[in-house]
Amino acid sequence: MSHRSLISLTTDFGYDDPFVGVMKGVIYSINPHVNIVDLAHNILPQNIQEAAFIIGMNYHYFPKNSIHLVVVDPGVGSGRRPLLVVADGHYFIGPDNGVFSYLYTRASKDLMVIHITSEHFFLKKDSPTFQGRDVFSPCAAWLATGLATDQLGETITDYHTMQLPAAVRQSALHLQGEVLFIDRFGNAITNITKTGIDELRGAAAGGTLKISVKGNHIRLREYYSQPEGREMSALMNSSGYLEIFIYRGSAASEYGIVPGDIVHVDISF
Amino acid sequence: MSHRSLISLTTDFGYDDPFVGVMKGVIYSINPHVNIVDLAHNILPQNIQEAAFIIGMNYHYFPKNSIHLVVVDPGVGSGRRPLLVVADGHYFIGPDNGVFSYLYTRASKDLMVIHITSEHFFLKKDSPTFQGRDVFSPCAAWLATGLATDQLGETITDYHTMQLPAAVRQSALHLQGEVLFIDRFGNAITNITKTGIDELRGAAAGGTLKISVKGNHIRLREYYSQPEGREMSALMNSSGYLEIFIYRGSAASEYGIVPGDIVHVDISF
Amino acid sequence: MSHRSLISLTTDFGYDDPFVGVMKGVIYSINPHVNIVDLAHNILPQNIQEAAFIIGMNYHYFPKNSIHLVVVDPGVGSGRRPLLVVADGHYFIGPDNGVFSYLYTRASKDLMVIHITSEHFFLKKDSPTFQGRDVFSPCAAWLATGLATDQLGETITDYHTMQLPAAVRQSALHLQGEVLFIDRFGNAITNITKTGIDELRGAAAGGTLKISVKGNHIRLREYYSQPEGREMSALMNSSGYLEIFIYRGSAASEYGIVPGDIVHVDISF
Repeated sequence: MSHRSLISLTTDFGYDDPFVGVMKGVIYSINPHVNIVDLAHNILPQNIQEAAFIIGMNYHYFPKNSIHLVVVDPGVGSGRRPLLVVADGHYFIGPDNGVFSYLYTRASKDLMVIHITSEHFFLKKDSPTFQGRDVFSPCAAWLATGLATDQLGETITDYHTMQLPAAVRQSALHLQGEVLFIDRFGNAITNITKTGIDELRGAAAGGTLKISVKGNHIRLREYYSQPEGREMSALMNSSGYLEIFIYRGSAASEYGIVPGDIVHVDISF
Repeated sequence: MSHRSLISLTTDFGYDDPFVGVMKGVIYSINPHVNIVDLAHNILPQNIQEAAFIIGMNYHYFPKNSIHLVVVDPGVGSGRRPLLVVADGHYFIGPDNGVFSYLYTRASKDLMVIHITSEHFFLKKDSPTFQGRDVFSPCAAWLATGLATDQLGETITDYHTMQLPAAVRQSALHLQGEVLFIDRFGNAITNITKTGIDELRGAAAGGTLKISVKGNHIRLREYYSQPEGREMSALMNSSGYLEIFIYRGSAASEYGIVPGDIVHVDISF
Repeated sequence: MSHRSLISLTTDFGYDDPFVGVMKGVIYSINPHVNIVDLAHNILPQNIQEAAFIIGMNYHYFPKNSIHLVVVDPGVGSGRRPLLVVADGHYFIGPDNGVFSYLYTRASKDLMVIHITSEHFFLKKDSPTFQGRDVFSPCAAWLATGLATDQLGETITDYHTMQLPAAVRQSALHLQGEVLFIDRFGNAITNITKTGIDELRGAAAGGTLKISVKGNHIRLREYYSQPEGREMSALMNSSGYLEIFIYRGSAASEYGIVPGDIVHVDISF
């Protein structure tokens, strides 16, 4: 087993079609000695931003030297370039459409971006419509064998970056963010980080933290079963982001919360 | 490969979010030499009883010395204890909320219950909300390396037990049970076992077995394609439980059967 | 690791129930040194034809000597035979109900069909309702250890074949096919092949290709993002079949396209 022993998969292919299984078939055809992990396949179809957050927030739970395939690729077949991104001791393979923007801005330690041009590693097929199978999977499988990264192509600096919505400090006492996703439990994950809240608190010692969403004031808790009854509340979730929840309920469906809804954090005296 | 080579996962995390993939990333970070199998991730959110039945009915199809992670955990972050249960030559890791009750009562051969307290095996995170990732997964991965069970904590006897609904022999000629789940095919799985029916028959040789649900009398068959047409029928399913079905149809949707519905088995002369 | 190192799974079991996980438990109990890949589990319940196309169109993306388990089996428990099919350097295990018909007609190079009769390889259970677990999975796991194929049973020639819908050349200038599936993106995959269209073009050089479905004339494109706006279009997809799509839309839901809808390809001058 090479020291690159794991490939994670993040796609918008869902679980109904054979696309993901076929990618694994291609990977194991080249390299049977790798562990493959499904990170997420129900990214909203062609939602590059959601994929950018999902891979950015979660890659660091995988072993160093993991290879993360991200295939949310509405422009497949057009001129957009296939990329290998090296960041923070991990490898990322996918299209140059901004899906790696989280890494460019937040995990940019030792960042290297390579335009994959070595077509002799690609699967030979007539179709330009499934590069997840024909380009990204074989390149990941070869990279996992221990291939040097410069064997795949040349370093570039003009890769495509997408602006990811970030929480904004509107004033010394006010931080404004937004809901990014709704999870299976109806919890609303925001882009407000623990760091952002700590800074807000640091600037206003002694004040009281107030959180509100859609006109509702909610309290900051430590864990899900803490509130009495079905009171909508917030906590810093396991990825370090502010999350809005109802214990044994669904904040999303009970309050109509959807991605993009504004969330305010204020310090008051 | 250690002799503990398999970790199964049973959760209520579903397939939309990255939770399960992240747990696998954590496991492989500690121990890349293990096979991971998804047993079930669509347990109804926070339904401890369903999880208790699913793991209890199915663990014995896995190799001896398998490690079964069960994360249906509404009380995560509160004081409830993390457990390692050893039963019938298998290992089980999850919260002390009754999710292992099937094992305590039905698979109690050589039962040992350990309160996991060795925090140096835990992932170091600020959040108390995802112990599937931070506590259970790393402990399973370390156990799979061959770690002695007493390295994880101390044996306890005051673990939490949940009363699981059992079929009841109402009289010599009458057994009453209930529907536990509906599967993908609309089949209704009950808590009436082959043993229960055999005992009923043994007590009343020569009688005729009668099964009824929601006022409908149904026949006991051997296999799914046996009934003529779309007649609702029953059979002893592959796990040894009475199951109600319609061949090429859905007993659940055509007769409105839901978990909790009462099922009667009678002997008549 | 034997040279047969991969088992793929195609079933109609879905992702809600523990059936697939249990099959993997059985496989790893016999042979922990195999890679298992989920190809598709959301085959429409008991839809043998869909399973026949899915495995037929996709097996060749897996390594030679892969073992493909296909369990779409409405007749389970009745007299239908379990089969091992060897075709094109791959192994296929499943019921004799026509699910391997694609292989019989289109991948028949070195075809061998074996009726599996060696019951000592089966799991010993009382139930005849889950042969995916009790018959097919253990036979696949044993085969993966390197077992000779004749250890599983005897060659037969009277296996059951299902007529799979094929595109028909209605005249020199007209090819007629039909929609086989709708994928997650609302794309409609037809049974019209690249070869079929090439032959049509070859017979009528200089003509213009016209494609129509449900009264709509659509253009043949190279890749998904090529059309301007949301114009319904077609392309030769990554499996070599004609596929109808709307870029960033759903051809199926916007035009009501369903499996069985007729698709015409004409050459005009």
